[in-house]
Amino acid sequence: MMARMMNFCSHCGQPVALAIPPGDHLPRFLCKACGVIHYENPKLVVGCVPELDGRILICKRAIEPRRGYWTIPAGFMENDETLQQAAARECQEEALADVEIGSLLVVAHVLSARQVHVFFRAHLPTPSFGAGPESLEVDLVKPADIPWSDIAFPSTEFALRRYLEDRAAGAEQHHFATLERRL
Amino acid sequence: MMARMMNFCSHCGQPVALAIPPGDHLPRFLCKACGVIHYENPKLVVGCVPELDGRILICKRAIEPRRGYWTIPAGFMENDETLQQAAARECQEEALADVEIGSLLVVAHVLSARQVHVFFRAHLPTPSFGAGPESLEVDLVKPADIPWSDIAFPSTEFALRRYLEDRAAGAEQHHFATLERRL
Repeated sequence: MMARMMNFCSHCGQPVALAIPPGDHLPRFLCKACGVIHYENPKLVVGCVPELDGRILICKRAIEPRRGYWTIPAGFMENDETLQQAAARECQEEALADVEIGSLLVVAHVLSARQVHVFFRAHLPTPSFGAGPESLEVDLVKPADIPWSDIAFPSTEFALRRYLEDRAAGAEQHHFATLERRL
Repeated sequence: MMARMMNFCSHCGQPVALAIPPGDHLPRFLCKACGVIHYENPKLVVGCVPELDGRILICKRAIEPRRGYWTIPAGFMENDETLQQAAARECQEEALADVEIGSLLVVAHVLSARQVHVFFRAHLPTPSFGAGPESLEVDLVKPADIPWSDIAFPSTEFALRRYLEDRAAGAEQHHFATLERRL
């Protein structure tokens, strides 16, 4: 189970309450027993669009949310890694593929999920891939065969469309967006 | 006091222990009582380099860490805001200045602090600024007057140097780096 509502202080175990700390402007979870302020901040989700000879590597999700829908390899950034290392690790875990991470493609604010999604271009050196434990299926598809009606998340579609547009234009720009979590 | 070591489950209040959950590859704080997994992820620190007519807005820190040293307006990203909104908010809070956020300047991985720093270029439309509660002093300085030996953090120096180099070259690139928390 993912972390849920904060009820208790993770430092001392006593109940917490929402209040605005002195000098602050937003309510935080405060522990009156030990004085710790528990800040909550957005999490980074990091991924890539891997390409080999014009084909794109996509994964069908084996887990919720959006099980059975297609996405690009991506997941929560861990401590002790760079964004690029996170993107490569997620591609290895979900698509069993070793990629070379390229330029920055997308930064998407998903406010309702309290997430920032960061996607890179990537190069898949050889057609070696497979379904990791979080994928039902992994496929290397021509752009014309991308299953647009079965894409998992708005940020997935945004990344794929900007990738293809930029590639057609011979450009490698980065794109900011503010998107919903679900369609 | 900032959040410290995780000892108790914030959901149910029972003790947590570090263990690798089934299907995972890293140790997490697990609650055996209620089953919640408490993930810890990097936090985003967001800021900007505000410029007006060739001068840069810098702030002398009134708070630890690095009280008395100079920085650019920056701070932790909140939920419910974009990176650009966070950068503008921090500039208003620390330098009492309303800026127009521009292009992406720096993404710095500060692994030892478990932080990702994101800095933008910014335009200060009028010379209206002052010291917010977290600043001892705010100054609009010529590049030659930047106090390089009294800069707060490696990411501050990296952002200022890349900003000035790019401006001299007439370019607006973005720069990735992996930096230490302190010099």
